Parts: sequence; structure tokens; C-alpha cells
Amino acid sequence: MKIALVGVGLIGGSFALAVKRRRLHVEVIGVDKNSDNIQKALQLGIIDGEASLEEAVKQSDVVILAIPVDALTSLLPQVMDLVDDGQLVIDFGSTKGAVCTAVEDHPKRHCFVAAHPMAGTEYSGPEAAFSTLFEDKIMILCEEEKSGDEQLNLFQEICKNLAMRVVNMTPKDHDLHIAYVSHLSHISSFALSTTVLAKEKDEKHIFAMAGSGFASTVRLAKSSPAMWSPIFRQNQKNLSGALDTYIAQLQQFKHVLDAKDAEAMESFMKEANKIRPIIDGIK
Amino acid sequence: MKIALVGVGLIGGSFALAVKRRRLHVEVIGVDKNSDNIQKALQLGIIDGEASLEEAVKQSDVVILAIPVDALTSLLPQVMDLVDDGQLVIDFGSTKGAVCTAVEDHPKRHCFVAAHPMAGTEYSGPEAAFSTLFEDKIMILCEEEKSGDEQLNLFQEICKNLAMRVVNMTPKDHDLHIAYVSHLSHISSFALSTTVLAKEKDEKHIFAMAGSGFASTVRLAKSSPAMWSPIFRQNQKNLSGALDTYIAQLQQFKHVLDAKDAEAMESFMKEANKIRPIIDGIK
Repeated sequence: MKIALVGVGLIGGSFALAVKRRRLHVEVIGVDKNSDNIQKALQLGIIDGEASLEEAVKQSDVVILAIPVDALTSLLPQVMDLVDDGQLVIDFGSTKGAVCTAVEDHPKRHCFVAAHPMAGTEYSGPEAAFSTLFEDKIMILCEEEKSGDEQLNLFQEICKNLAMRVVNMTPKDHDLHIAYVSHLSHISSFALSTTVLAKEKDEKHIFAMAGSGFASTVRLAKSSPAMWSPIFRQNQKNLSGALDTYIAQLQQFKHVLDAKDAEAMESFMKEANKIRPIIDGIK
Repeated sequence: MKIALVGVGLIGGSFALAVKRRRLHVEVIGVDKNSDNIQKALQLGIIDGEASLEEAVKQSDVVILAIPVDALTSLLPQVMDLVDDGQLVIDFGSTKGAVCTAVEDHPKRHCFVAAHPMAGTEYSGPEAAFSTLFEDKIMILCEEEKSGDEQLNLFQEICKNLAMRVVNMTPKDHDLHIAYVSHLSHISSFALSTTVLAKEKDEKHIFAMAGSGFASTVRLAKSSPAMWSPIFRQNQKNLSGALDTYIAQLQQFKHVLDAKDAEAMESFMKEANKIRPIIDGIK
């Protein structure tokens, strides 16, 4: 199987490493506008060669698009123009509404599978990729009914190879829920970081006093602005609503804190404690 | 050395297990109003016996107070009334202003060392205790000048045994900085949890879509309301200020998000990225 890997960073790179480990006879052709990334991906064994987008797409069975979501929506229609009926194009974008809309009327829509692997870390680039990132994770699949049978079968087979579980969702549901369980977490971390940095000009206090709890809560503040800015913009409406709710919850807590209302504070925290069985179930 | 351990939960229990592992001839007498906790602590080898507060204090070289901060401020003066000049009393409270004020004029003030180990997890109770919790962590020491030389020497020796580094700080500085690097993280997690739970009545979406990033950010929402409510109340003024700044940061981000101002969003995130070397240094 020949794969055109467009974007050889954390997600694309981890996918390629996993497929290579799980399947025989896989050749990966890298496409990346960043030539440093191509060199690193070659050295790390993520890709076996490089090519232009057109060359790579033409010669491959599967095209994987693992690039920032703004580049994705503009590049996907071009890729779709290049593919033949038997080819499979999969995107790994973190928003699904805009990308599905971008090709909704494309004559080759059946060649495309809209997907989002629920996997990632706060790092980026080919050197951050590792072959087990996708293992036992969820792969969200949107608009299954618009993909061809041949394409869906191959997609399902690849997900099975990778030990991923496929979950169907509409692009609208995906974008709404992901705003709450992923995008909002990132913003809460980014803002926690800027809050603490602004206060603690003298870093030694942070070094002395910050423990593993702070490190855990602020970890996502290390995430790549270049990757997240387009995601937040594409999902602005849902995320803005999630942020409104989050700010309202914080204001409610501040209200009972300022009133030193022990009972109300404890009932707020007890409600929050209900997340425990849910996060204990997250791998 | 005989230790009276008042509070046999995560912090007190971990301290006792560590001291027992690192020092010869240590006997720990447990004091806890919760008799279940006493039984568990006996079974887990955290304590070697139990006694009333008065009995335990009378027969010990060192008294450790590892209880919620509201109980601490009321119990500490009683303990101080019971001790003799050669004894050492250490508290592990997460706020330091109120506890230092509670004994500032006590005739035995020199027997007391105000401390806060920068260590913890989101769990509580004796079964959550483990002997390496304090290892390589910071121990904040407040008002060193008010403790006696004999007491300070023994305190420093114990910290050294536990591979902890002692850092001096005023209670005022401690309470201000801890609001930012610990208390605020907890509230950002509690509020993230209630936000997501309120939205996602149907838990299956959370199960499907929440990844390790969400789990990390919301982890502290599992923390004990009974422990944190008194901490937040005692540090209400500092925490309220920290929450104001945090909410303002979130509102600022929402403002540039709603304007879809890519440049401003990225510069916000780049500023947040500066936390990276700091959290990479946290053990």
C-alpha cells in the first residue's frame, strides 16, 4: 500500500509509524511545505521518500491530510481534483464542519473520508511522533453516508490495524462537543499560563511552589499556536459558547467564594467531582 | 523518635511512611477523629498505635498536624498549650497566614514550625498515602525567626532525611503565590468539570471524545471538597484576585476569538507557551 502523507508532523508522523508497524508492504511518500520536516521525517523512518503534492497523490492508494485546518480546507478540494475513483483520501482535521462543507459538492466526494483521531500531545513536529499514539484511541468518522463503500472498507480496515475504535458523528455534533472536551481545555490552560506568568514576574516563586497539579492543569499551554489558531477560528461559534459557560461557572464560584459560603463552595466541588469516573475511563 | 501524627490522610500518611523508611527507630502514634482512617492507617503501617490528642502529644518528640486548615487553626493553640520546651510541632497546612496568626502570641511559639510541603495528589485518605510523595519536593518554611534553634535543627534534619529542599517565605508571600500556582489551578479544573458536565448530559460524547489533554486539565476536579473549601475560605482575598485576573484573561481571549483575530490569538498563545521551561522543571 502506498500512502501520500501530506503533513509529516505529530499526527501524520504517528499515523505513518503505526501503519508501518502494523501492516506489511507500506510505502509512505511525504509532502510538506517545510523541508526541514521532510528531512527529519526521512531520518526518523516516518516517510520513505518525498514528492510534490501532485506526484504523491497520483501514485498513492491512500492520501492522508494531517495539516492545520485552515490549510486543509483550501488544499482538500485540490487533492480531490487529482484523485481517481479507486483512491481514498482521509483528513485528520480537528474541526469537521468546514472541511466537510469544502467538498460537499465535489464530484469525487465518495473518495473522501472525514475523520478525527482523538489522540495528540502538547508537542508538534515529526520528532514528536510515536507509533503508539493512536493505539486504543477513538477515531471519529463524519458523514459516513457520503463516502464510497470501497473507501469506507479500507478506512475501517486501517483503523482496525491501528487498534482504533470508529465512532460515527455528524460534523455539527463533532464540532459542538469537541469545543467542550478539547478546545475549551486548551484555552483554560493557555489563560492559566498567562495569568500566572503575568503575576509571577519573578519566576523563582513559581519554581518553588508549582507542583504536579499545576503542571497537569497548565500542560496544554505548551501547545502550538500555529496549529490551534485556525482550529479556534473555524470552531469560533461553539467555542465562544463554551467559553461563556466556563466564565459563568468561574464567576459563580467567585461569588460563593467572596461570600465565604462554605456549603455552596462544597456543593460546587461535589458536582465537579462527578467527572471522576469519566476521566478514570480515559486512556 | 516518637511522632504524634494528627491527621493520617494523604499528607500525614505519606510523611509517616517516608520518615519510617528513612530513619531508624521511629514510632508513630495516630490521632484522627475518623476511626475508619485510624484502622486503615494501622493496617497500612502508617501508624503503630493510636491515642487521644493529649496522650499522643504528651509522649511524642514531634507533633505533625496534617489536617484541614480550619481544624488546624482551632487545634494548633490547644496543642501548643500541651507541649514542653523541647518538643517540636509542625503543621502542613496549605495556607500559612491564618495558622501563624493563631499562635503568634503563644508562649510556646518557639516550639512551632510553620511549613507547607509542595506535594499532593487529587486523592485523599490513608489509602492514598505513599512513601515517595515528598521526595525531591520543596518544603516551604514560614517565620523561621520565630522558631527555636533546637526545633529548626530537627525540622531541617527531617526534611533532609526526606530529600526535601527547604525554601523560606513569609506567610503573606506564601498565601499570595500559592493562590496563583495551586488554588487557581484547582478552581479552573473544578469549573471546567462543571462546564462540561452541564453541557454533556449524555456522557457518551465525553467518553468518545475526551482525550488525555482533557483528562490532564480536569484532573484536579477530583480533589476533596472537605479539604479545599477551608483552604479557599482562608485564602479568599488572594484567590479572589487571582480569579479576577484569570476571568479577565479568558474574556480577553474570547474577545479576540469572536473577532477571529488570528494574530492576537497567536500572540496570546505564544505568551502562554512561555510556561514551557517552567513546567518542564517541575518534578
